[in-house]
Amino acid sequence: MTVIASWSTSSAPVDAAQFRQVFRRHAAGVAVVTADAGRGAAGVTVTSLASLSAEPPLLSFSISVTASTWPHLRDADTAVVHLLGAGHAELARTFATSGIDRFAAPTRWHRLPTGEPVLDSAAAWLRISIEHRHPRRQLAPGHRPGRGGRPRGGGAPLLYHDGSYHAL
Amino acid sequence: MTVIASWSTSSAPVDAAQFRQVFRRHAAGVAVVTADAGRGAAGVTVTSLASLSAEPPLLSFSISVTASTWPHLRDADTAVVHLLGAGHAELARTFATSGIDRFAAPTRWHRLPTGEPVLDSAAAWLRISIEHRHPRRQLAPGHRPGRGGRPRGGGAPLLYHDGSYHAL
Repeated sequence: MTVIASWSTSSAPVDAAQFRQVFRRHAAGVAVVTADAGRGAAGVTVTSLASLSAEPPLLSFSISVTASTWPHLRDADTAVVHLLGAGHAELARTFATSGIDRFAAPTRWHRLPTGEPVLDSAAAWLRISIEHRHPRRQLAPGHRPGRGGRPRGGGAPLLYHDGSYHAL
Repeated sequence: MTVIASWSTSSAPVDAAQFRQVFRRHAAGVAVVTADAGRGAAGVTVTSLASLSAEPPLLSFSISVTASTWPHLRDADTAVVHLLGAGHAELARTFATSGIDRFAAPTRWHRLPTGEPVLDSAAAWLRISIEHRHPRRQLAPGHRPGRGGRPRGGGAPLLYHDGSYHAL
């Protein structure tokens, strides 16, 4: 079950900066999602990849509808999810940079027999079938998200990797 | 937009072990979600927390419907998301352990004036309003997920934290 929630209290206005400050404390694995909906290779860096279940093998990720890659993922039936290794920060930056050809050199890639672009250097990748696209709905009128949390605190984030917990 | 996808090819049966092996390469930040739907404090460790947008401030996480905390999150309107720091592996383990009272000592917690349980030691937390619950739908009959990826590869995962990339 995927739960979508808003930051919420009954007392104060939305504060996007404070929300961002909380999530700055969060660490995430980095993935690049590529697809070709018939208009050429497209791809984007995402930090929201999650495994939903192994049986059946389901995953999720989120992408802004204002991202240049969104129209491609909207129209494609399949895509490739690449999990990036520690040495691939430059690849992550490339696929998070606007206004460039992300598939130009030094990006190395090829196509699967079924057409999807695959990045040669990714640590691991999966071809996926897109099952559902859940739009972020507008919040109901009268909804008043706002302060209700403690965004500060010290230290590095806790991470989960390969079955155990780690510090960054 | 949240995209839900299945591991897919046209050629081979589902292999949950191989899917798990790919996601063992993925690193994730660790959070604990708590709620009280009127039947006492409940909470669970999740590694699927993601920020969907800052304006409006929206987040998502996933939880198995077989988790003991799911009925509480199903029935609660609000919850608290705690982001764990590097020193809180024991807290993460506690809220991932079945058959124990996760709120018993040494867990330290209190309630918000609105009733939600808050863990005293979390690095940061947000009170949230649950907006939507998206069930993981059954895959369509005839759907044949399976092999279509490269699960092996060397090295540590790439992480995104506080605006930059890191190795584990």
